[in-house]
Formats: sequence, structure tokens, C-alpha cells
Amino acid sequence: MINKTITAPKGFLAGGLRCGIKQSGKPDLAMLYCPGGAVSAAVFTTNKLYSAAVKVCRANAGSRRTYAVVVNSGNANACTGAVGLQTAQLTCDKVAQVLALQTNQVLIASTGIIGHIPPRQKILDGVEVLSGKLTDKPAGGLGFAKAIMTTDTRPKQAVRRTTIGGAAVTLAGTAKGAGMIGPNMATTIAVLTTDAAISKPMLQRAFREAIGMSLNRLTVDGHQSTNDTAMILASGQAGNAVINAGGKAYEQFKRALIDLCTDLAKQMALDAEGATRMFTVIVKGARNNQQALAAARAVANYDLVKCAVHGGDPNWGRILCAVGSCGVDINLDKLSCTIGGHAVFKNGQPVPFDPKAVSRVICKKQHTIVVDLGVGKGVDFCYGCDLSREYVTVNADYHT
Amino acid sequence: MINKTITAPKGFLAGGLRCGIKQSGKPDLAMLYCPGGAVSAAVFTTNKLYSAAVKVCRANAGSRRTYAVVVNSGNANACTGAVGLQTAQLTCDKVAQVLALQTNQVLIASTGIIGHIPPRQKILDGVEVLSGKLTDKPAGGLGFAKAIMTTDTRPKQAVRRTTIGGAAVTLAGTAKGAGMIGPNMATTIAVLTTDAAISKPMLQRAFREAIGMSLNRLTVDGHQSTNDTAMILASGQAGNAVINAGGKAYEQFKRALIDLCTDLAKQMALDAEGATRMFTVIVKGARNNQQALAAARAVANYDLVKCAVHGGDPNWGRILCAVGSCGVDINLDKLSCTIGGHAVFKNGQPVPFDPKAVSRVICKKQHTIVVDLGVGKGVDFCYGCDLSREYVTVNADYHT
Repeated sequence: MINKTITAPKGFLAGGLRCGIKQSGKPDLAMLYCPGGAVSAAVFTTNKLYSAAVKVCRANAGSRRTYAVVVNSGNANACTGAVGLQTAQLTCDKVAQVLALQTNQVLIASTGIIGHIPPRQKILDGVEVLSGKLTDKPAGGLGFAKAIMTTDTRPKQAVRRTTIGGAAVTLAGTAKGAGMIGPNMATTIAVLTTDAAISKPMLQRAFREAIGMSLNRLTVDGHQSTNDTAMILASGQAGNAVINAGGKAYEQFKRALIDLCTDLAKQMALDAEGATRMFTVIVKGARNNQQALAAARAVANYDLVKCAVHGGDPNWGRILCAVGSCGVDINLDKLSCTIGGHAVFKNGQPVPFDPKAVSRVICKKQHTIVVDLGVGKGVDFCYGCDLSREYVTVNADYHT
Repeated sequence: MINKTITAPKGFLAGGLRCGIKQSGKPDLAMLYCPGGAVSAAVFTTNKLYSAAVKVCRANAGSRRTYAVVVNSGNANACTGAVGLQTAQLTCDKVAQVLALQTNQVLIASTGIIGHIPPRQKILDGVEVLSGKLTDKPAGGLGFAKAIMTTDTRPKQAVRRTTIGGAAVTLAGTAKGAGMIGPNMATTIAVLTTDAAISKPMLQRAFREAIGMSLNRLTVDGHQSTNDTAMILASGQAGNAVINAGGKAYEQFKRALIDLCTDLAKQMALDAEGATRMFTVIVKGARNNQQALAAARAVANYDLVKCAVHGGDPNWGRILCAVGSCGVDINLDKLSCTIGGHAVFKNGQPVPFDPKAVSRVICKKQHTIVVDLGVGKGVDFCYGCDLSREYVTVNADYHT
């Protein structure tokens, strides 16, 4: 059986179990272990009310070597005051104790409901049990992927294999959605592994760029959680010459990493709360790339566009309305828009089109909207998904 | 029968009819007429892709005297190019012709779907017919209120009566929602009348302030339409001494106007697409008033908060998540939050509360969320409404 999980790269063991945080009895504790040690990189939410886990993880992410990752779902451990912070710290301490590490060699993330004090003892007991069940088999990685899920309907996993300097290198990742995904600095929980040999600074650089091009381009509801964390561990066991500067090897690694992260981002979009389909918004002809990104995000975040996509409705006026209200420069005489390659608005004028044909395009699993602002050469993109009744159902009763 | 419509103030006739824009056969053309002339004030969308009607109306709103208003629903006349602009101009020309006015004495607004060329001849014919049916009876004002509706389920009307300098003064207004309501400069279509005698500059000042405190504090989906227009006509027939400077009379007028506009804003919130209840977000303890308003809007715009309100769910973590991600300054040690007077988070720590009692408060027609950022003395507020499955239903199939 081919390993398509985060234990696919050499050097990693993983697992997940039910420690009792979730009332549903589903898995809620995940651990990743790299016995030989790894270099790591991580990016975090910019929400000022970041969780206790983010605070602890940010501190530990600076360590020269990282050996383990612990993630709990079902409780965000955010807005939980001093008690919550202590729990996050004690959880890392416990992982370090059972695996004979230093605390700052452990990364941590939490996801779930905000403002509930996490059940400390259940987590600490869970870590102890789980530490004896970690495996480098696919079951270990899949167990991890399942244990970080919240409202996700399926685990999200991706693997990429490439050759760098003659050595076979593997990259893998898992992520959890599915709401509260804003397009600003990382998103939700994503844990990636690779056996590439790479220096910490170069890993950080590649990771930041890859997340920027993938998870940071995804918006589900335009809101950034208190817990967004994405991290990668590189075990260095692939046998390639250590990547410690830019150049061909670095570019190859980065390309594979972007590809992997994009795969995860699209899986998240398609499994966003209530989502039935996704779309890509490309904005070109902008004053600059920043304005292009702002406009793309405005369109992808716009509830009325998301509803129209859900209804298979070629209501392009809402796309332009979002563009017009987001503050970017527009040349009205050049403004144009296509949906799935069909021109609907050109040079400031509506264009006759076949609504049934465009509706068929929108109803596909993925389609692309292109807006040309007609001003300059700026271009950027964003991923979005439709807004359904199911989103409301999922989120109206999450608490109780 | 007491007149509770925009023909309640002295000097106004109004009416509405079906001119054939809407396929549903519902009323879609409204006119207001002030035979003695009025001073007017108007505020418009800041969306860069403003409609043809906004372009024409903005030009005419500067006139010294205004005699008539024409509004169509069912077609926004936005993103419709030169043809649409000509239709808006010809509509004003037609109103001027049948009422023996100058074109620039006519204000105009449109609302409905974006990007469809409006049926010009139907509108021009409708103006001709409607001009012979205008009346100062309640039926005229109600006809106007019904003819500007789009996805509204009921007409929105309000009246205020006050005494200024011994003279009985009446103010009245009607507005249409119900989606695409962003909290930035006016919102949707609102047409107000008063018989107060007031100079144009003072009317403009009072109106801008009143809209700022009411319609601009309302957010349904955080998006500003291409067509937002609010206008007021003052006939001056109440017999009060002309208000042409600040002072007691001006303050009395402004207070009544704010009260009237707030009434309309709340009616819009409660009839927002799919909404079942509304809420007020008050943010205090902010660095300044601007930060307070930004935080209040972030909470009121947050889909996850709106879903929780819909579900009667005291999920206060989402409120704080919105506050944390909107960029305002927060003192974590002082941060506090109440829902309907129940403390849920105090001085940076969760507070035990009775979830059933808080849920009951949320399930009322209106409730208030208060967030104290613990930083300074800035305070402001915003109105929001819940997000329901019905919002998606209404908006997934609006086009076809």
C-alpha cells in the first residue's frame, strides 16, 4: 500500500486517538514524531486573540531542532486565560517527557470551539497513551489526519514526490478546514512533513512563500481564526545535499511545496462548511498586484457571489459590485469580466451570452472568474467556495 | 385615517404602479411630487461602479430646488454603459416634461438586478401614466413604498411628528432593503419627506449626520450596492421659521430625523433577506471612536456570529474572534463581553453563565452585544441581523 499520508516522507511516525474532548467520541488528539529530529518552519494567525497553543507554538518554533507535534481538536484553547495557557504548556511538557525531549522541541496546535477551558487531564492522559501507538505506517498518518478534523467531512491529505540532486524526496501534508478561513497569513491547522535536507532559514522562506500562494489565497468566510497554524518538519533523511541557499534545488523543492499546499487548499475549499463547489478568481489589469489581490478577495468573499455560484446563476453584476466597492482603481471603459471563459462584460458594457452554457460552467466542481480592471499590469488570484444553506445549518448550532 | 406615509408632511403627492420591469407583475415604478418645490439633500453609494441613476441623481441633487423623485425597482441600471445612462437621463426628462419642470429639478434612483439594460419605453410610458395618478392621500405614499421594494417582504415606512418653534412639523420616510447592505455611506434606496422649513445647507448637514447614525450603522451582508441612494425633500410648508443655522430648532429637527432614520434602519434589519431577528453591537473602551466602529462592524458582519444568532447560540468566542481579527487595539487583561446584559467574558477570562438564559435573550426580536476593548474611551455601535438558510435561498436564484 502506497503511503499517501504525512508518514510517507522518511523519518516520521504519527497517530491519533480519542482522548475525550469531543462529545461525539470522534478522534481528537494527534501526534507526529520525528525520532531523528527535524528542522521546522511555522506560520500563525494574525488574530490578536490568538490561542494559547499559538502562543506556545510560536515560542517553540524558533528552536533549532523540532522532534514532535501535538494537535488537539474539539477545543480551540483560545480566550481561556491563564488556565488555558498553562494547559498548552503542560501538554508540550508531557509530550517532551514521554518522548524524552526538551519542551521547546515540541510544536502544538489546537482547533475547535473558542472560550471553553480544555479538559487538561484528558489531554495529558491521551498524550501518554498515544505516544505508545505512533507508527510510520499509513495508518499513523491517516489517524493524525482524522484526529485534527472538526466540521470537515473527510480528512485532507496530499503527497508529492520529486527528485532533487539525484535523491528521491517526498513531501506530504494534512490540513483541516472548514470554516473561519480568512485569507490572511496561514489558515486553520496544516501539518506538513518532508524528508528533504534543507536549512531552517531556507525552509522558512520556502514555506512562507508556499503558504502565501496557496492557503493564504483561500477564503471560505473571510474570517481569520484565533488558531490558524501551518507548520512543516523536514527530517533531512532523503539523502540530498542540504539546501542552504537559493538555486535549482531550492526552486525544485519550493515548486513541489507550492503544488502540495495548493492541493490541500483546494481540498479545503471543496470541503468547506456546506460547500458544493469552488471557484478561482483571477484579477488582472490592476494598478499593482496588491490591488489585484484585494479585488480577487473581495469577489471570493462576497456572500452574494457565493450564493450565485451555489445557485449556478451567472449573476455577474454581483462580481462587478464587489470589485467596485473594494477600493481598487478601475478603468470603466476597459473593465471586463469572463466566467469560465465566457465573456459577460467587456470594455464597460454588458455582452450577450448564453446563460445556460455559463450556468453549466458554474455548476462544475471548479470554475474560474477573470476580471480585467483595465488599469495596469497587476495580477493576482484567490480561491473561494459557494455559500449554501448547509453552511448556516452547520454554524447555527455548533455550540450547543 | 392617519397618514403614516411619505405624503404625511404637507406639500407632497406620491404614487406607484406596475410599468412592466418586473416579470412578477409587481409594482416597479414610484414617483414623488412636491408642486410647491422643496430643498433637497442626498447621499450616495461610494461603490465605484455606481449606477446610471446615481450619476444623474448626484448631478441634479445640487439644484437649488427639487420638485420630483422617480424610482424604479426590478432593474439597477448599473453596468449598463451609455445606453443605461441615456435611459436614466431620459427618465428625468420625461418626469420634467409631464410635470412642467426642468430636468435638474428631478431626482432619480434605481434598484434591482445589475447589468441588464432597463426597458426604457416601459419606464417612460409608466411615468406618463403615473403622473396622472399621484395623490397626497396615504394610498399615494403606500403605493410609492410598495413600488420600490425588491426582495423586501413588506414596505418600510415611518413618520415622526414634532413641534419646532411652535409649528407642527412632520417627517416621514420609506426605504427598501434587503440585501447588499454595507455600512458605508447611505444604503439601498431611502426617500424621506418633511414639511419643515430649512435651508439646503442645514438640511444636507442634518441628513448626512442622521444617515451616519442610522442607515450607515446597519450591515446585512457587508457589501455596498452600486445603487445606494438616500434623499430627503423639505417642502417648508410647516410654517416654522426657516432653520438656517445651528441651534435649538436645528437640534430638534435633527433629533427627529435621526429617530426616523433609525426606525427605518431597524425595519430594514428585521426584513433583511432571510433575517428572523436583529442585534446591536456596542463597542466601548476602544482607542478611539473609529476603532470602536470598525470592531462593531466586524462583529455585525461576521457570518459565524450571524449564524450563531440565528441558532440562538451563545457562542461568544466568535464575537471575540471577529474583534481580534479586525485590527483594532485590544487590552487582553481588560477585554470583556456581555450578551443581553449577561457577562460571558470579563477581564480576559471566560465567565460562567446560564446558556439557556442567554439563548433566550438572543432569540428575542432584538438583543444587544457589548464588547469592552479595555484600551481607551472610544465607543460606537452597529446594527446587524442573523444569517439564515433563507438568505441563501433568496440569493442563489435571484437572476434566473
